[in-house]
Amino acid sequence: MTVLVVGSVALDSVETPFGKADNVLGGSGTFFSASASHLASVQLVGVVGSDYPMEQLRSSFAGRPVDLAGLEQADGASFRWRGRYRHDLNTAETLETHLGVFSNFRPKIPEQFRNAPFVFLGNIDPRLQLEVLEQVARPKLVACDTMNFWIESRRPDLLRLLEHVDLITLNDAEARQLTEEFNLVRAARWIMQRGPKHVIIKKGEHGAFMFTSSTIFFAPAYPLESVFDPTGAGDAFAGGFMGYLARTGDLSEENLRRAVVFGSAMGSFAVEKFSIERLLEIGIDDLQMRVREFHRLVNFQQDTAS
Amino acid sequence: MTVLVVGSVALDSVETPFGKADNVLGGSGTFFSASASHLASVQLVGVVGSDYPMEQLRSSFAGRPVDLAGLEQADGASFRWRGRYRHDLNTAETLETHLGVFSNFRPKIPEQFRNAPFVFLGNIDPRLQLEVLEQVARPKLVACDTMNFWIESRRPDLLRLLEHVDLITLNDAEARQLTEEFNLVRAARWIMQRGPKHVIIKKGEHGAFMFTSSTIFFAPAYPLESVFDPTGAGDAFAGGFMGYLARTGDLSEENLRRAVVFGSAMGSFAVEKFSIERLLEIGIDDLQMRVREFHRLVNFQQDTAS
Repeated sequence: MTVLVVGSVALDSVETPFGKADNVLGGSGTFFSASASHLASVQLVGVVGSDYPMEQLRSSFAGRPVDLAGLEQADGASFRWRGRYRHDLNTAETLETHLGVFSNFRPKIPEQFRNAPFVFLGNIDPRLQLEVLEQVARPKLVACDTMNFWIESRRPDLLRLLEHVDLITLNDAEARQLTEEFNLVRAARWIMQRGPKHVIIKKGEHGAFMFTSSTIFFAPAYPLESVFDPTGAGDAFAGGFMGYLARTGDLSEENLRRAVVFGSAMGSFAVEKFSIERLLEIGIDDLQMRVREFHRLVNFQQDTAS
Repeated sequence: MTVLVVGSVALDSVETPFGKADNVLGGSGTFFSASASHLASVQLVGVVGSDYPMEQLRSSFAGRPVDLAGLEQADGASFRWRGRYRHDLNTAETLETHLGVFSNFRPKIPEQFRNAPFVFLGNIDPRLQLEVLEQVARPKLVACDTMNFWIESRRPDLLRLLEHVDLITLNDAEARQLTEEFNLVRAARWIMQRGPKHVIIKKGEHGAFMFTSSTIFFAPAYPLESVFDPTGAGDAFAGGFMGYLARTGDLSEENLRRAVVFGSAMGSFAVEKFSIERLLEIGIDDLQMRVREFHRLVNFQQDTAS
């Protein structure tokens, strides 16, 4: 099945303790697509400026099931982000953000995308996320992401959005900010009372929780020996998660757990190189091997005798 | 089988966002014993001052297999610690430390303790940890803990100790400080090159890793809705871990993994109340139920079809 994703398509300039990359492919829609397209067909909706290297994006996605018909090219500058990570790779320091054409973005879902069974509303203005939902027909599952900026500036819209999504992914700081609950179990319950049946709280290098009304699942981040560039890990996670659901079409709790692990595996690949480089290199075998490593990482047999 | 533990026996005064407790039973040896004694016999070696409420300790441990023959009562003041936690319960702010008789502590292992098959060297001066090892006869497994103070002030002794222990438990900040490696996989390898076959790196609310030369195991912290007082969680973890090993006598990788989960379960109980209160309340059934909850928390079935 297909995943429709609406998100940013940007050019990133990143500095880490291990190197530097300028104007490389970035943005939540880009990372999501590079990740999810290992598992399912992706329909990407976004906007870029007239300066965007469209050929580079096309050739990066050549041979992958990523439909770019919804990627609008508008007059003006592309969204550019410049950031830096220090040794604590868990938090980015934003040096520059130029929204460019992204600041006037109004998502237009192409006719042929409107029946997508899986919809991921990347981190954009919740008013626009709601506009996307008005344009699509009864998906099997709608998930959204958000960030501190929208929690502060668009709280009523975000709360309205929550009533219309099945699942939200956000990081621990965002969950605390949105709910004013420090404890993540309580924060997740607060959110579920406002709509979503599932809440995924991402803790970066400390893994991710998936909450439902009656269960909690936890997947650690893969303990890599070298984390090269954390940019896009959360979007790669979302792509792996949604891609796995779209591939299997199964919304059971057991399958959602597997989807979280596929998401975590994709996040762990994303951070091994700059931009979407590593996500483009790997194949399904690498992904499945890492999922087996995740299983081995947490697996223990219960001792019924003791 | 029996676990010998050498550690502090102290009086704690703790303030958390949820309450306040003054001069309650604390110290690494106390938490360790309250935890491990659910699973195995414990021999506690430590020192208290003439002001210590020995009767309270005895009645707390009444009916439990904790042998206090190695707990010396010396003239002078008991070790007292006063600390505070804010909403981020992961780090204690130390307000006062009075070492009292603990500052002249020289562990004397009673004759009848010297053949203990499992030995845990709680967080004391590494010179004293080495003195303990000189007094015991070939244990099946020796584990130690340490802290930032000893890493700074007794580095050569600590490195010498590492050559003589099978396992070390320390937290992520301590592992980074000891090894000067930010990455925990590298930090663990650095430590294993200096002696221990196993390294457990505790990350507080973010769980714990156990490293061996060829494998990594991860157990999350249990996602509690209310963490009341984190004091002693690490020592309760060590007690559950060593207690489980002593109960089973099995040092296989699979059993070490289970021991980590029993340790995590004990840590999760410790933080539910002040001091060792909760550790004294629970029974083996509560412990086994929480271990099953840990299994459910991380369990996923690999999908061989996808």
